[in-house]
Amino acid sequence: MFEIQRRKTVAVNIGGVMMGSDYPIVVQSMTNTDTADAIKTASQVIELAAAGSEIVRITVNNKEAAEKVPEIKQRIEDAGYPVPLVGDFHYNGHILLREYPETAKALAKYRINPGNVGVGKKHDDNFRTMIDVAKEFDRPVRIGVNWGSLDQAMVIRMMDDNTRNGGILTAEQIMINAMLESAISSAQMAQDYGLGKDKIIISTKISNAPMLWNVYQRLSTMCDYALHLGLTEAGMGTKGIAASSAALAPLLAQGIGDTIRVSLTPEPRASRKLEVEVAKQILQAVGARNFSPQVTACPGCGRTTSTLFQELARDIQASLDSSMATWKKTHPGVENMTVAVMGCVVNGPGESKHANIGISLPGTGEEPRAPVYRDGALVTTLKGSSIAEEFMSMVAEYVENRYGNKATLV
Amino acid sequence: MFEIQRRKTVAVNIGGVMMGSDYPIVVQSMTNTDTADAIKTASQVIELAAAGSEIVRITVNNKEAAEKVPEIKQRIEDAGYPVPLVGDFHYNGHILLREYPETAKALAKYRINPGNVGVGKKHDDNFRTMIDVAKEFDRPVRIGVNWGSLDQAMVIRMMDDNTRNGGILTAEQIMINAMLESAISSAQMAQDYGLGKDKIIISTKISNAPMLWNVYQRLSTMCDYALHLGLTEAGMGTKGIAASSAALAPLLAQGIGDTIRVSLTPEPRASRKLEVEVAKQILQAVGARNFSPQVTACPGCGRTTSTLFQELARDIQASLDSSMATWKKTHPGVENMTVAVMGCVVNGPGESKHANIGISLPGTGEEPRAPVYRDGALVTTLKGSSIAEEFMSMVAEYVENRYGNKATLV
Repeated sequence: MFEIQRRKTVAVNIGGVMMGSDYPIVVQSMTNTDTADAIKTASQVIELAAAGSEIVRITVNNKEAAEKVPEIKQRIEDAGYPVPLVGDFHYNGHILLREYPETAKALAKYRINPGNVGVGKKHDDNFRTMIDVAKEFDRPVRIGVNWGSLDQAMVIRMMDDNTRNGGILTAEQIMINAMLESAISSAQMAQDYGLGKDKIIISTKISNAPMLWNVYQRLSTMCDYALHLGLTEAGMGTKGIAASSAALAPLLAQGIGDTIRVSLTPEPRASRKLEVEVAKQILQAVGARNFSPQVTACPGCGRTTSTLFQELARDIQASLDSSMATWKKTHPGVENMTVAVMGCVVNGPGESKHANIGISLPGTGEEPRAPVYRDGALVTTLKGSSIAEEFMSMVAEYVENRYGNKATLV
Repeated sequence: MFEIQRRKTVAVNIGGVMMGSDYPIVVQSMTNTDTADAIKTASQVIELAAAGSEIVRITVNNKEAAEKVPEIKQRIEDAGYPVPLVGDFHYNGHILLREYPETAKALAKYRINPGNVGVGKKHDDNFRTMIDVAKEFDRPVRIGVNWGSLDQAMVIRMMDDNTRNGGILTAEQIMINAMLESAISSAQMAQDYGLGKDKIIISTKISNAPMLWNVYQRLSTMCDYALHLGLTEAGMGTKGIAASSAALAPLLAQGIGDTIRVSLTPEPRASRKLEVEVAKQILQAVGARNFSPQVTACPGCGRTTSTLFQELARDIQASLDSSMATWKKTHPGVENMTVAVMGCVVNGPGESKHANIGISLPGTGEEPRAPVYRDGALVTTLKGSSIAEEFMSMVAEYVENRYGNKATLV
């Protein structure tokens, strides 16, 4: 009842990572290092993979970049992070994939942008070359349409058609129609050239959420290809996080989307892995996947004037997050755990009962007692100055007792 | 076509702020200072109002707090921020509202939690007292149900009913049914006691997004009261922002929600106004309201190895945001403006054309030229080391020319 019903899509194997409605929604991201710098790029791929990116895309924009892809693959495998690499191609993919067969082989998927593979007959030839390489190496492709790089000849033709038809469509509607036509006709062309349906993923990205909903809702009724979902150019900071989450959630809630990428602009010199963390948080928020135990904490109000519960909420979330890397192997299921850290008696006991383990800290004027609930039942009431430490150990104990033993069974 | 179709709700006047489907979705927030400290609370109310909170809620949890409400109201009015204040009542609202009529008058709305106004006959008496005060002072109320403080007698009765019926419902379904019954029956009781429909707002908050979607979708088909929407106890940091945005957007996209509050747990000692900023960003992302010009920036990739575009995106957003306080009065409409700051030729020119004004910075290996587009047309190509400064002045000029003149007409 409270689970997302995935829209049925064909399964695609991307270097061992399965994508499609029968599999969990895949988290992916993209590097922003110069691919020609193999050491830097491999190091960022590892950082993204360690943060939870299950597929990592790198731009392959010129010969220097193409040349280094096998080395990047080798480096990440040597480091113990054999995450599938996707090559992002624009303009010259047909040349690079032909000239660097070792690169074509090292990549687990090719992203093709039908808006910039060439014009007219060249478009079809170049597109066919990339599909031929995909067939040769048995690789899937993503037909990645973006409103910022739409096939201009197609848009102009559709604008003209609209004018002849009395101009009933707005420019925005025409653009969405063009995106859908570009995506679907390219996928059909790939199939005509002999690529299987299980080798095709589609995306149609826009930077405006309501238009994104429209294009993906229509796309999802037009085909059963696996869909790559993302708000393009989401922007920076809290704006980028809020916009990406608000744009993706309504589609995910409708079962649309087999993989997501969150396109955040990092603050200058900031870590790239924030986009991976946000992608995981979105999927966890909509109930699609759990990655880490969640701390439910109240926002605080005039009833909670100490900073104790804010500090405790922060410390517990940090401690749980940092433990996940090892717990993933040793404590299976712990990612489904919920911990409540509440600041007063209003919703404290209730929310704590709904969590696996929860504490209701005393608000202003309340007795300095903190009831702790485990699996919905009151187990103890903490008092004194070491409430935080004691609750932290109870959480650790709960994790051991509930999830620790299973490890030996796996 | 790309606009939210609001579900029809009755309009409510909250101290001059109109709420309901005929009005923009209202942004609100809540203080976390001790209400008994009038100076601190007034100062935080002002901070929240200045950040864009159109209604501010304060807890009125005891006599010391109740006593200070008129002073808080006076202080914010004297400071030039006459934002409507909402009193948050639990357990003892019937006592405080009767004992402090000046407080009842100073508040623009009363939040009643039907889960904790008392038990049995006392519940109905206490509830009636609060409704009587609301009638006396012609004030609206919010029937604020929260799964953390649900009427336990009602839940137990419904659990028993379910057992007798063969136990077909899950505990979660029963809880949602109980929340809906608590909300709707309380609102009906308020009407029976003589409060008008235009004086009633409802909320049914849960900390789990899929359950939140379910309860609000059902609530919206059961009544046409104005709805207050929020994910309760969303948590901290990026997790709280992503979870709130992902939870609220699917409902907003369906036209559900007449006011929103984002319940973030602040980092210890961090500013409270983040929750207001996120609320505005969510509404802007889903296309419900525009508050500030938006900077569309690409996430960067291996094609964009300098930090120039990240710095430019950050500086422009900061400059636009800081100007909005005065522009709101002097440059009406500027909040609808979009600015694109793009890092390479792939989507740069396209995304720039879609914006009011946009720049496509050179990526790695591209010529050091940055075409600038205004209203979809190429107007110049910037070169050299002062690209950023020149584009910033072009944005300022655009704002003046497009939105500055209107001010004299207002």
